[in-house]
Amino acid sequence: MRTVDILNVALANRSYPILIGADLLGRADLFAARCAARDILIVSNTTVAPLYLPRLAASLAGRRAIEVTLPDGEAHKTLANMARVLDVLVANRFARDCAVVALGGGVVGDLAGFVAATYQRGVTFVQVPTTLLAQVDSAVGGKTGVNHPGGKNLIGAFHQPTLVVSDTTTLATLPARELRAGLAEVIKYGLICDAVLFGWLEAHLEPLLAGDPAALAHVIRRSCEIKTAVVARDEREAGERALLNLGHTFGHALEAATSYKEWLHGEAVGAGLVMAADMSHDIGLLPAAEAARVRTLVERVGLPTRFEGLAPQALRDHMRLDKKVQDGQLRLVLLRRIGEAFLTADYPAAALTRTLARHCGGAA
Amino acid sequence: MRTVDILNVALANRSYPILIGADLLGRADLFAARCAARDILIVSNTTVAPLYLPRLAASLAGRRAIEVTLPDGEAHKTLANMARVLDVLVANRFARDCAVVALGGGVVGDLAGFVAATYQRGVTFVQVPTTLLAQVDSAVGGKTGVNHPGGKNLIGAFHQPTLVVSDTTTLATLPARELRAGLAEVIKYGLICDAVLFGWLEAHLEPLLAGDPAALAHVIRRSCEIKTAVVARDEREAGERALLNLGHTFGHALEAATSYKEWLHGEAVGAGLVMAADMSHDIGLLPAAEAARVRTLVERVGLPTRFEGLAPQALRDHMRLDKKVQDGQLRLVLLRRIGEAFLTADYPAAALTRTLARHCGGAA
Repeated sequence: MRTVDILNVALANRSYPILIGADLLGRADLFAARCAARDILIVSNTTVAPLYLPRLAASLAGRRAIEVTLPDGEAHKTLANMARVLDVLVANRFARDCAVVALGGGVVGDLAGFVAATYQRGVTFVQVPTTLLAQVDSAVGGKTGVNHPGGKNLIGAFHQPTLVVSDTTTLATLPARELRAGLAEVIKYGLICDAVLFGWLEAHLEPLLAGDPAALAHVIRRSCEIKTAVVARDEREAGERALLNLGHTFGHALEAATSYKEWLHGEAVGAGLVMAADMSHDIGLLPAAEAARVRTLVERVGLPTRFEGLAPQALRDHMRLDKKVQDGQLRLVLLRRIGEAFLTADYPAAALTRTLARHCGGAA
Repeated sequence: MRTVDILNVALANRSYPILIGADLLGRADLFAARCAARDILIVSNTTVAPLYLPRLAASLAGRRAIEVTLPDGEAHKTLANMARVLDVLVANRFARDCAVVALGGGVVGDLAGFVAATYQRGVTFVQVPTTLLAQVDSAVGGKTGVNHPGGKNLIGAFHQPTLVVSDTTTLATLPARELRAGLAEVIKYGLICDAVLFGWLEAHLEPLLAGDPAALAHVIRRSCEIKTAVVARDEREAGERALLNLGHTFGHALEAATSYKEWLHGEAVGAGLVMAADMSHDIGLLPAAEAARVRTLVERVGLPTRFEGLAPQALRDHMRLDKKVQDGQLRLVLLRRIGEAFLTADYPAAALTRTLARHCGGAA
């Protein structure tokens, strides 16, 4: 039997383990030991379900498992689809002691998590992330929610999972584009607080992009360590947790301005990281050489950094609804150096305008 | 200036005051001292808004206050109306530092509270209850949510208010039917844990039904004391808080079986209290004389206790989705005596069937 890497997330009375390893989906023992619910709703999507749902369902044999399969993609992370999943729970008379299991990427996890947060005011939630982005970021930390046409993740709740099972074998079938998108979040962790991780990514990008299991397991473990430590100190984002939003204010605006249809979340974040670094340099904080390292790494990963046909003002409008707006001021996460980010509302408005103009616009 | 009775609810880092008194709606100073938000969404309904919204809005002068008026009634406490209110927040670009203020009864408070719980994953929430039921029960304790056609309050969240302002003057315009419905929840507190309160209600029912301000202020204060003490010990209903559901398993089923259109929540609870007492007597717990006192008081209040044209099995079906179902067993709150309730799954199924049959059925 293969080894399972266990990372325990300490959150007062809601602590939970993250299991990382190969071939975990088939491990009925892991699920049996950590999720006692007899009624289980598995939420997945049309891409992931055919690949992995039978294996997961087999591991849950002996319980009543109902499946809901959503269309794939960020555009489907809506209140309407959340209501659809709730209808299935009610139609099957699931009680408060049921569990909701998310099998898929960030979209499935966020939506299923919001369902689990609100059905009967909260039921057990298990994350089984199958994309790199979900394994390094969205499946961990308890943020759940759906998009509103007016903005990303505008409706949601904090609801911690009771178990996260990250089966690294599922990454073997992940499209290259999704793998690259997931790496944007790993770069983010390096930029925020771990220059060593950032350097490691620069040195080991080729095996990562080739899907090398050991390299992927390393970045998943390290990303979860960083994220869970931040969340343990600031679960509800009163302060430090906002740093995990580096690149996301730009990224969310890019996603909303293109109706969640054009870019993967990680692609938008990758561009957002370059924009944050660029702006940090513009206002005299980040040295030019470090801003260049950020751009170079993001470009090597193959993520976009410039958007033609998108008006800078459209992005600025979407940023007004960012959850970090306070007293009418948009706070941004910026960089002092690689490995040190901070949250601030103290920047010249013109610097933001210049940054947006440098990364989008042009032919419509 | 009139006195304000202040009850502080102790909930770790989310403590908040309940203000009880006459003419509080016009007290800008009370709101200014306890709610700093500059952007405020006031949610009300078509009955309450014409009566009290201008007075509340005047107390919030100098801030940006947007109003949403919902249709009146339990049938409108839906996910669709919740989405409508969220749309208003997004359309007005309200940020996370805004506040949602509920002006109305339990329906407005529950729905607006769920909006506050989920908009940007949680914003400030202020309750301004204008019905007796909301002042003694629903505005206090942090339960928010909406109904599903399949069951009452099936979708929701725990989200504590930061301030509750109970202006007893608003009860002067409350229809007699609503006043009587609110008294059902007060009787409930007496039955659960305060035989003295129950006796006081028996002795002072006439002034209460006549709307005597001092009598109403007394029951509001005492009800809030009991409820907040229970919630402080068990916010998420891991145990004791379930006792506050005395009569509600029956009541919610009555409401759902009649599509939330026929009975006020308090009316259904009143009937539910009699059913719980009746069943407690049936299984040999509650003495006949005490069961009779419960029925007599509920009848004196003018609440229904029997439902013609409603099949007992229809009620039983709706009870299967009660949030107290565990391991497929419906747990009920029953009475050992007036002033002592307990939660149990240990009762003969036939006793429940008999109880339902005694209180509903007959001509369709």
